[in-house]
Amino acid sequence: LDSGTGREVRRMLSTLTPQSIAQLLESSPPRIRQVLWKLIDKDVEGEVLQELTDEVRSQILATMDTEEMVAVMEGLDADDVADILQDLPERVMAEVLSAMSATDRRRVESVLAYDEETAGGLMDTDTISVRPNLTLDVVLRYLRRHEQLPESTDSLFVVNRQGQYIGLLPLAKLLTTDPAVTVREVVNTDVEPIPADMPDTEVARLFEKYDWITAPVVDENNRLVGRITIDDVVDVIREGADHSLMSLAGLDEEEDTFAPVRRTARRRALWLGINLLTALLASWVISLFQGTLDKVVALAILMPIVASMGGVAGSQTLTVVIRGMALGQIGRSNLGWLMSRELGSAILNALLWSVVMGVIAGLWFGDQRIAIIIIAAMVINLVTAALAGAVLPVALRAMRIDPALAGGVALTTVTDVVGFMSFLGLATWYYG
Amino acid sequence: LDSGTGREVRRMLSTLTPQSIAQLLESSPPRIRQVLWKLIDKDVEGEVLQELTDEVRSQILATMDTEEMVAVMEGLDADDVADILQDLPERVMAEVLSAMSATDRRRVESVLAYDEETAGGLMDTDTISVRPNLTLDVVLRYLRRHEQLPESTDSLFVVNRQGQYIGLLPLAKLLTTDPAVTVREVVNTDVEPIPADMPDTEVARLFEKYDWITAPVVDENNRLVGRITIDDVVDVIREGADHSLMSLAGLDEEEDTFAPVRRTARRRALWLGINLLTALLASWVISLFQGTLDKVVALAILMPIVASMGGVAGSQTLTVVIRGMALGQIGRSNLGWLMSRELGSAILNALLWSVVMGVIAGLWFGDQRIAIIIIAAMVINLVTAALAGAVLPVALRAMRIDPALAGGVALTTVTDVVGFMSFLGLATWYYG
Repeated sequence: LDSGTGREVRRMLSTLTPQSIAQLLESSPPRIRQVLWKLIDKDVEGEVLQELTDEVRSQILATMDTEEMVAVMEGLDADDVADILQDLPERVMAEVLSAMSATDRRRVESVLAYDEETAGGLMDTDTISVRPNLTLDVVLRYLRRHEQLPESTDSLFVVNRQGQYIGLLPLAKLLTTDPAVTVREVVNTDVEPIPADMPDTEVARLFEKYDWITAPVVDENNRLVGRITIDDVVDVIREGADHSLMSLAGLDEEEDTFAPVRRTARRRALWLGINLLTALLASWVISLFQGTLDKVVALAILMPIVASMGGVAGSQTLTVVIRGMALGQIGRSNLGWLMSRELGSAILNALLWSVVMGVIAGLWFGDQRIAIIIIAAMVINLVTAALAGAVLPVALRAMRIDPALAGGVALTTVTDVVGFMSFLGLATWYYG
Repeated sequence: LDSGTGREVRRMLSTLTPQSIAQLLESSPPRIRQVLWKLIDKDVEGEVLQELTDEVRSQILATMDTEEMVAVMEGLDADDVADILQDLPERVMAEVLSAMSATDRRRVESVLAYDEETAGGLMDTDTISVRPNLTLDVVLRYLRRHEQLPESTDSLFVVNRQGQYIGLLPLAKLLTTDPAVTVREVVNTDVEPIPADMPDTEVARLFEKYDWITAPVVDENNRLVGRITIDDVVDVIREGADHSLMSLAGLDEEEDTFAPVRRTARRRALWLGINLLTALLASWVISLFQGTLDKVVALAILMPIVASMGGVAGSQTLTVVIRGMALGQIGRSNLGWLMSRELGSAILNALLWSVVMGVIAGLWFGDQRIAIIIIAAMVINLVTAALAGAVLPVALRAMRIDPALAGGVALTTVTDVVGFMSFLGLATWYYG
């Protein structure tokens, strides 16, 4: 790409959709990203920007001045503009806002009033609303005066004189009903409006549950303030699902796959440092049994197996519980059952694999005692691991700590400490 | 719940939507699940069934006979019926099909002809199609003859005489355009039809990229055979994102959070067995340096730290690469850049934390040599871990092995073996 002449690349880019250009930018290392951005047609810059993840976008915005930013954001939905502005430093945001037209600014500010991770932060303000006393014929004529309807419009919103939400009028209904009928007679009141301060993950759960395409957003007085469309919700679902995966490795779900070296190194350093602390704790546990290790070198050889099997068993439980929590399946009422299930499963597997390992250890070192010790230690560690895997995420959540982020480290600490302690402790007692 | 009388529970259930009932079933242990299912109103059983995950659903289907199944599936979309049938044994599926009405059977069979994980398996056949030569007025009158339009209808499909797909006619367009205009003049040909054999993950990527709500599905002759709606795609996105998380712990993304003990134990046994093999390999590596361990017991105390830090560093890289691959960001062209970035980041963090650890080890054991050995071993292992974390998933994919499933085990094997080998090997050479 670097070697191609700019003109050819520009021609190639002009044949791509904004979405494809965004994907290309996200899949490019930083330097190529900057070069590509300069070659993009000015007209689609805004749309491309809107498709990028927050982190990649802020890299590109960092190279622009206020005027360029305002130009780029023209023609974007208010929610997308708000989304972009929220990543900017306060000062730059104020500058960009004051450079916008008054109508645009008002729209964007109404979205900015809400936290980014709520329904209000997700919504756009492109709603078409009608009164319940109109006939469908009047509504049809009103719509025909529009050049086009806002994207993803599948329903109109029915509101009263005070702008309070009453229900939906699906376009499909409008098209299949006698035009002489009034809106009131066909309004769909099944869809509960979403309060603007509802967390976005809960909004996503509702959309997923009820297969909505658009849903109305209301303020505390039940006044219609905007609508949420499925395309923005899909991003929330994707990020929510990625959150568990990335957090378990101490990463952020928004992390740019192609972030530069220094940023990557800085972000990961903390996680490695935390892990070093827990590993030191495990080493300290081992050091308590220095005398025994000195006598029986086989213990040093076998001890990582006990810790590792506990870690794997625990992480299986942890992953199932974290996923279950993300799907909203786990609460106080079924946690007891879940723990006893995990306990049962852990006991069965502990018996199976500890005996296998006991036989191997006995044959390997020609020592029956070491077989018995490793069997006992593995059973203790696998059972502890399963209980820790089930309890830790729930306990962390109760303490308002993200279980996906802290659960893995906490679990490894438990399985390492219990693994080394039980194996070396039993050995010290047995050989002592 | 167990103690409540059936009637009260039944009344409570009748106030819930099918989606909420499905969520309740999924959040319940197996025995309560069976009790709840019996108390559900017959009318909503089909809808509830359709909302359940495959695994929970097949547990419930296992308790029904053919007649019950046919009754339950009445009124469901063809794609949902096909989805349910595909989980059944071949013999039962044939029985249920032959007990259905001829029209229903034909519809379901047209979906069943395609693999479950393709566009054809995702689609439903509820399309409304119109010819390009009609005026919008005729289309409007045609629509008004329908009682209602299929769910999530936001566009009509424009096809020629042979039933071949030409383009979309969005309902919004229909409502804002002069009725005297013909379909041909306003048809939207931007949306490329989806071939019925496209994998569902690629379908999901297209929907996510272009913010589609519905999209047409065509056969190899470009004939319209059905449509895919966003609600079915959201499930594919959710499952795809969960796949990486669950696979890294050796689990299936469809795994029932409340599966019974024995099924859970059986599924996890294999993964623990595989891990035991890799842990044994690591132990064998340690046993090669038995003599050195016998002489310097500090090595046994510190060796888990080297392995563990490598494991954490590697899993961070692995997770970023697996997520990048799932998002379609990583290919041959940028892999080289990614590897050098990971290498750079690994070197920086290796230098930082190995020196910290070296100082700690030196002070702890009052031995300068052990400080130098652990610094060198950690640098070697962290750098190897980063390279392995980047290369393994790409190599596994090239071998058609699921990187999310096999990547974690393969990585741990590398970091354990290299960690113990470098630390104990250097020590043997140094103290030897």
